[in-house]
Amino acid sequence: MYFEGAEKRLSLTLAAGCPSLRALGDAYWRRALAKSDTEILSKLSSEQCDAYLLSESSLFVWHDSLVLITCGNTRLIETVLSLVESLGRDQIASLSYQRKSEILPALQTSRFEEDIARLGTMLSGAAYRIGHLDGHHHHIFFSGSKVRLKPAQTVQMYHIRGELADYLLSDGQTIAGIASRLNLSQLLSGFDIDAHLFSPLGYSLNAIRGEDYFTLHITPQETSSYVSLETNLSLGAGLNGIVGKLLNRLNPVSWDLAGYEAETLAYCAKQYSLEARGELALADGQGLYVKHYKQRDCEQLLPVAL
Amino acid sequence: MYFEGAEKRLSLTLAAGCPSLRALGDAYWRRALAKSDTEILSKLSSEQCDAYLLSESSLFVWHDSLVLITCGNTRLIETVLSLVESLGRDQIASLSYQRKSEILPALQTSRFEEDIARLGTMLSGAAYRIGHLDGHHHHIFFSGSKVRLKPAQTVQMYHIRGELADYLLSDGQTIAGIASRLNLSQLLSGFDIDAHLFSPLGYSLNAIRGEDYFTLHITPQETSSYVSLETNLSLGAGLNGIVGKLLNRLNPVSWDLAGYEAETLAYCAKQYSLEARGELALADGQGLYVKHYKQRDCEQLLPVAL
Repeated sequence: MYFEGAEKRLSLTLAAGCPSLRALGDAYWRRALAKSDTEILSKLSSEQCDAYLLSESSLFVWHDSLVLITCGNTRLIETVLSLVESLGRDQIASLSYQRKSEILPALQTSRFEEDIARLGTMLSGAAYRIGHLDGHHHHIFFSGSKVRLKPAQTVQMYHIRGELADYLLSDGQTIAGIASRLNLSQLLSGFDIDAHLFSPLGYSLNAIRGEDYFTLHITPQETSSYVSLETNLSLGAGLNGIVGKLLNRLNPVSWDLAGYEAETLAYCAKQYSLEARGELALADGQGLYVKHYKQRDCEQLLPVAL
Repeated sequence: MYFEGAEKRLSLTLAAGCPSLRALGDAYWRRALAKSDTEILSKLSSEQCDAYLLSESSLFVWHDSLVLITCGNTRLIETVLSLVESLGRDQIASLSYQRKSEILPALQTSRFEEDIARLGTMLSGAAYRIGHLDGHHHHIFFSGSKVRLKPAQTVQMYHIRGELADYLLSDGQTIAGIASRLNLSQLLSGFDIDAHLFSPLGYSLNAIRGEDYFTLHITPQETSSYVSLETNLSLGAGLNGIVGKLLNRLNPVSWDLAGYEAETLAYCAKQYSLEARGELALADGQGLYVKHYKQRDCEQLLPVAL
């Protein structure tokens, strides 16, 4: 009853004038993803974006950029190295490779430091950790120029509770049942949605609207539940409201926000306090901004029999 | 500049009428500790207790019980298995084997679950985790009867800051300098003290007073500092004041309390809030009580270049 929800993440942007990434076709992505034992389950397209729902999370491909997220014990670094080689390092204007702190790092097949030792032989860049090792933290390798990465805000929620959390553990759950309980039609108004329910547990959603993307992944396992979302919507342009509604429905013990653009609004829900914040300056005004929130009330910890 | 401060811990009590553990002699302990690549550096004795200061933490031996604590990448389970075999499982009335959540678990040579799979073939018992996997937590295997384990309170402090933290990273530090800055003569009045300064960094202290023991271990490394103490003193009988003074001097971002007896006082320092608490019922009224405290102010996270 354990699944590693914490994500590894690749974001890259091509140099101006490169051939379109979208023209590479499904078979190209299938081969690249196979390097990390990840499969394409379905695909959704808009005029600007192809959204692949994966056996472990999501891939979004635009004309000149991509965002690839995988969870579980996937070896995303293998796909990253393969893509850098196949696309050509000179074609890559900016790249970030990230790992959110895993819940059970001892079960991973590599450490971030090992991944970037390999990546660093192909691309010059710098690597950082933000957040303490004994709590939630982000690892990031950044190889950048003046070409910006896709703007992205990510939210990670830990230990969800309540009616919806119970439903997400139940046998009878359905994609429609989750959509209605999350009120997705209102939450993601105007987005096309592709969702998948995993067996025995787990839910993934990709949504696109023109250039915009939104993805949600739920690992509801009882003692290690984890929910993450990522989107290019800014907090000011609707994300603040979406996060507030999801927090109300999922009621996590703690949650983190990490974004590539300085946020203009600070989310404030009465039941949470901001316990830590930090920022990492990257190239040319870009940065990674992180915030950690925790419920204000003292939590009652329940022993887990092993 | 990284050292795993988080401890593995064995506590055991012999059945009534067994030969004295203290009579086994130094050579016996040296051989048992060698199984986990741990050495005895020095020894202090009172009428009731032998306190061994180790290359990785401490061993306290009384007539009918012992407490053994090791840190770093020691394989304490090897010593535990060897002691259970050598002392004889029928002689052991109660035993607990614990691991505090490691700061870098991926660098450990075994997981707690692997350790107890081996221990469980020799002793019947039950294992638990208390605290979330994505934060500070305790693992405990308990094999018990009506014979109680040595009463113990432990405190773990994370990310110390300020003048004393700076001194503990400095080249010129001395055992006397640390003693005076910690005001040990007042803090541990009536105790005999044995302290050791490690190279390049790290400080260990054993202190005994008759039946009482107190041990303090400092891992001051800059991005993963950790300070732990353990004693049989109860919060009501002086420990509350000691913890308060150490918190003022070491100023950690967060700290945990874990004890084998329900505490009578709750420590309250204005700058900390109690963020989580829990209790695990063991045999015959014994229990493990944990509390997690964190500074009230929002913390500014600083990126660490890797």
